[in-house]
Amino acid sequence: MSLEILNENRCFGGWLKQLSHPSEKLNCSMRFSIYLPPNASEQHKVPVVYWLSGLTCTDENFMQKAGAQRIAAELGIALVAPDTSPRGETVPDDPEGAYDFGLGAGFYLNATEAPWNKHYLMYDYITEELPALVESLFPVSELRAISGHSMGGHGAITIALKNPERFKSVTAFSPICNPMSCPWGEKALSGYLGEDRAQWTDYDSTYLLSCCEDQIPMLVDQGSADQFLAEQLKPETLLSAAPEGYPLDYRLQEGYDHSYYFIASFIEDHLRFHSKYLL
Amino acid sequence: MSLEILNENRCFGGWLKQLSHPSEKLNCSMRFSIYLPPNASEQHKVPVVYWLSGLTCTDENFMQKAGAQRIAAELGIALVAPDTSPRGETVPDDPEGAYDFGLGAGFYLNATEAPWNKHYLMYDYITEELPALVESLFPVSELRAISGHSMGGHGAITIALKNPERFKSVTAFSPICNPMSCPWGEKALSGYLGEDRAQWTDYDSTYLLSCCEDQIPMLVDQGSADQFLAEQLKPETLLSAAPEGYPLDYRLQEGYDHSYYFIASFIEDHLRFHSKYLL
Repeated sequence: MSLEILNENRCFGGWLKQLSHPSEKLNCSMRFSIYLPPNASEQHKVPVVYWLSGLTCTDENFMQKAGAQRIAAELGIALVAPDTSPRGETVPDDPEGAYDFGLGAGFYLNATEAPWNKHYLMYDYITEELPALVESLFPVSELRAISGHSMGGHGAITIALKNPERFKSVTAFSPICNPMSCPWGEKALSGYLGEDRAQWTDYDSTYLLSCCEDQIPMLVDQGSADQFLAEQLKPETLLSAAPEGYPLDYRLQEGYDHSYYFIASFIEDHLRFHSKYLL
Repeated sequence: MSLEILNENRCFGGWLKQLSHPSEKLNCSMRFSIYLPPNASEQHKVPVVYWLSGLTCTDENFMQKAGAQRIAAELGIALVAPDTSPRGETVPDDPEGAYDFGLGAGFYLNATEAPWNKHYLMYDYITEELPALVESLFPVSELRAISGHSMGGHGAITIALKNPERFKSVTAFSPICNPMSCPWGEKALSGYLGEDRAQWTDYDSTYLLSCCEDQIPMLVDQGSADQFLAEQLKPETLLSAAPEGYPLDYRLQEGYDHSYYFIASFIEDHLRFHSKYLL
């Protein structure tokens, strides 16, 4: 289990690289993908946007389907896409192979319940271990922003709200806004954190936004034809929780669904939004 | 086995649709994907670029990974991506499950050898049946261009050279330029057409270009780091076959490989190239 470059592809004048590395926090080998724009060099470290993917994804979906490298190349911003959970033979998994818990469904939190608490510490991995590794290996600066989709939108918003000194801006597509009160969230939070709902607030975007002290610029896109909108995503809870004057730009995009075709259609806006705070 | 819309996704203001339909030529049910730009309507039929994919692909790879919809939306051009072979329980397949013959490897020709000649008539399907269907179902005009990757680059160039009245322009990424003299091509042509190499010339871009009478504008991109370049693709044969003054723009792109990351990096150039002849 050592640091290894799995793939390298030239892309829009820069380089896409996929790596595996031993993770101390997650106690397993982890993969991530990074896109380095053409202007990244040891003499010119570039800012970075972390992308957190949704349920069932790996580090590959975003890099293959979002079309983000074109804009990242133009803006001179790196992109980092981690996996969505710890993986491997030693990592416990949902016994029934659920798509929404365990493998591919880490929910970007620190699990406290056994057996998940030995590996499912994605919050620490995303906020600390992965940025430290990325910044040690690549010409990437400490100017960071964070984005994500669905479960990853939940991850991006909760992590940004709790770490305004580490992330300059946050954007999300179709985020799970109020996991304390939707089926995906209740299953994950009870499984990873136990039945004491007071512990869940720490990973609920709506709750965290309602009591946040710092302001972090936030852009949220939601498709009106998203099949998960009413039951799982609940953006209205986030909107009503935002303190007066909070810099949250929420856009309901008519006719768009939950797919990567929606993300691809608006990812340019998200990267340009981040660039205002990173460049 | 009837016409059916399998998926519809809003994308860059237009619509991506995936359909299945009974194919008379191929004697099975076939899938294809079409992207309709926002300005397409019964009052405004739009030109169309056909995209032929490479070995092992379906109609989905290009639409998910190339990022072409953004430019198609801007230019007002439809995109159509067919499957790469006939499929289904009644369709014969390579007995050893080869990736480069049979399923996913139709080579865009009309097979003459049994048992392939009952289904593997992709040439007729791409040149006649599919355009007729597309133009009957969607607000797409008879202004057509054709593009493709690898095996699909071979398909695009051979089809364009033989049908200059049906396609205004042709572009290719990493095409198999001389299938009569490379392993992929020799396997496919002998399998589908038999051992008489005189029959093979009809599906060899290099041969067809050397004796073509019409000129069809052609753009070819090839990555210098493509693992298949020397053994399978052989663009030098195409270049040396082009008659003096033939409108062939060949670009060797330094460091790029055979992947969709290469295609995504330059697809904009290809669609803008086609737009000069379609709009």
